[in-house]
Amino acid sequence: MNTQVLLARRPAGEPQPDDFHIVRTPVPEPGEGQLLLRTRFLSLDPYMRGRMSPSKSYAAPMAIGDVMVGGTVSEVVASRHPGFAAGETVLAYAGWQSYALSNGAGLRNIDPAGFPITYALGVLGMPGQTAYCALLDIGKPKAGETVVVSAASGAVGSVAGQIAKIAGCRVVGIAGTNEKCAYVTETLGFDACINRRTADLDTALLQACPDGIDVYYDNTAGKILDAVLRHIVAGARIPLVGLIEHYNATQAPAGPFLGPLLVNRAKIEGFLVSDHEAHAAAFLREVTSWLREGRIRYREDIVDGLENAPRALIGLLRGENFGKLSVRCA
Amino acid sequence: MNTQVLLARRPAGEPQPDDFHIVRTPVPEPGEGQLLLRTRFLSLDPYMRGRMSPSKSYAAPMAIGDVMVGGTVSEVVASRHPGFAAGETVLAYAGWQSYALSNGAGLRNIDPAGFPITYALGVLGMPGQTAYCALLDIGKPKAGETVVVSAASGAVGSVAGQIAKIAGCRVVGIAGTNEKCAYVTETLGFDACINRRTADLDTALLQACPDGIDVYYDNTAGKILDAVLRHIVAGARIPLVGLIEHYNATQAPAGPFLGPLLVNRAKIEGFLVSDHEAHAAAFLREVTSWLREGRIRYREDIVDGLENAPRALIGLLRGENFGKLSVRCA
Repeated sequence: MNTQVLLARRPAGEPQPDDFHIVRTPVPEPGEGQLLLRTRFLSLDPYMRGRMSPSKSYAAPMAIGDVMVGGTVSEVVASRHPGFAAGETVLAYAGWQSYALSNGAGLRNIDPAGFPITYALGVLGMPGQTAYCALLDIGKPKAGETVVVSAASGAVGSVAGQIAKIAGCRVVGIAGTNEKCAYVTETLGFDACINRRTADLDTALLQACPDGIDVYYDNTAGKILDAVLRHIVAGARIPLVGLIEHYNATQAPAGPFLGPLLVNRAKIEGFLVSDHEAHAAAFLREVTSWLREGRIRYREDIVDGLENAPRALIGLLRGENFGKLSVRCA
Repeated sequence: MNTQVLLARRPAGEPQPDDFHIVRTPVPEPGEGQLLLRTRFLSLDPYMRGRMSPSKSYAAPMAIGDVMVGGTVSEVVASRHPGFAAGETVLAYAGWQSYALSNGAGLRNIDPAGFPITYALGVLGMPGQTAYCALLDIGKPKAGETVVVSAASGAVGSVAGQIAKIAGCRVVGIAGTNEKCAYVTETLGFDACINRRTADLDTALLQACPDGIDVYYDNTAGKILDAVLRHIVAGARIPLVGLIEHYNATQAPAGPFLGPLLVNRAKIEGFLVSDHEAHAAAFLREVTSWLREGRIRYREDIVDGLENAPRALIGLLRGENFGKLSVRCA
């Protein structure tokens, strides 16, 4: 029989056992061009919580009654597909069930390369690739910089932090127990690790990152991100990879919710004009000609007398001016 | 006499007239290598509120008793400096006073090019350059995209939005009165403008941006940013240029405060591994060899039996697993 775990109900907050429903159904027969997979290992990953929710994210939500989705290491037990033979082990996306049919799309043969085959679900699979690409493509760590990693003992954070060490960085982890912190520093070789449940984050970050934070590899968002932002240095990069602190939330968080940045692979970047002097000449040339051509209109709001400058600034901060505010002096 | 406006007291929240102190002092005499400037126009800009606060930002705070800082259009009334002659008009940073001494550093002769000289404090000065560089260097608008601009009738926003129109974008402004909104659409040529005080932002953004938001030129942060984030599309870019909604705040905002991103010209960027397939081969090659060399350690947390997958996922979201979580199936 095929054991299947279905989504029975959408969780309100933290998932409950009753949100899942386990059924036993006949093992299906592969048709022409199909193969039958038996699940050997199922990966569990935080993103699954998002798929249980009704809102659309980068992937569509599951429907009630669907087999829970998930990556698997599966064995081909019968094949009517030319590309795969019985007995082969493949990386699949067969979900929470012991057997699944496949048409071969998205399957990949696993070369264990001397490692446990479960590594294909982790360090050599999607979580490892997430660690590698987000750190190097967005974080761009340079030797000597300080990199902070949240969920540091997890599948993604543990790999991201070690790659940052290989890149020559000072690496500080954040994890949820003293045991995990000890593992992060002693086994993984991070320079320090902060217990997010017991430490005062600001104090601990100041101590662990005396030169400030250049890269924050963010698996959590929430209060950890809030605190890290208070300690970043000029030109810091923050790959936003996970939102673990928000996954079980039942209401919108206060303040800006950065989840859409992740879902949309979007960015917010701080700007100071003094960094862009290289474009000052182009600015002056182009805007001058756009003004001449009437393609840019410009309104001024001019106040008379230095004595009136305080009132005018107070009004500016209230939005009372209309156009560029300046003071005509005597 | 020289009229000077001094910082008398650090504001608590919105600045009050008593936070400023006006004094009259003798006009100073230029020494060798110095020149005497008379202020013709003083620019008032939102950043000044930050300098009145005690906390260090990208620039040091003013001290109590300092002349308020600010950009000026000034006339050289006496010069003992070889580079400038009496009667010339210069762009200076002489602050809130009618006369100032200068050693010439940072002064620039103004070529009015047929425009009012006050333009050097606005559309052809720092605010205009801020509009141009932040929009083009960070926002990177492409023809056909939707660009939203807050503080849209202001010195920066009005120029940023018009440049986005020149770039071929649909441009939606956000401003604080109906009169400003009418100016933004009728005179500046934006496609739409939302009154932030009277509109429901989510409803108005949905209506004005039916294809979502590609670029948000953010002059305000606060509730406008919160709402815009709910309507961005894949690959959106948000130059964070101003924090007007926070300048008068007396306590830290709830949720992540993005001010440090601006001050540090830092970025947060959302990441999805599926966008980075180009680096998949490099990832697998490098991480495999780091594992072989023992430079990456990896820990697994394997649970037995599909029936236990729900409990295991619940635990994962609580941080109860230790290492990469997967389920061994029968």
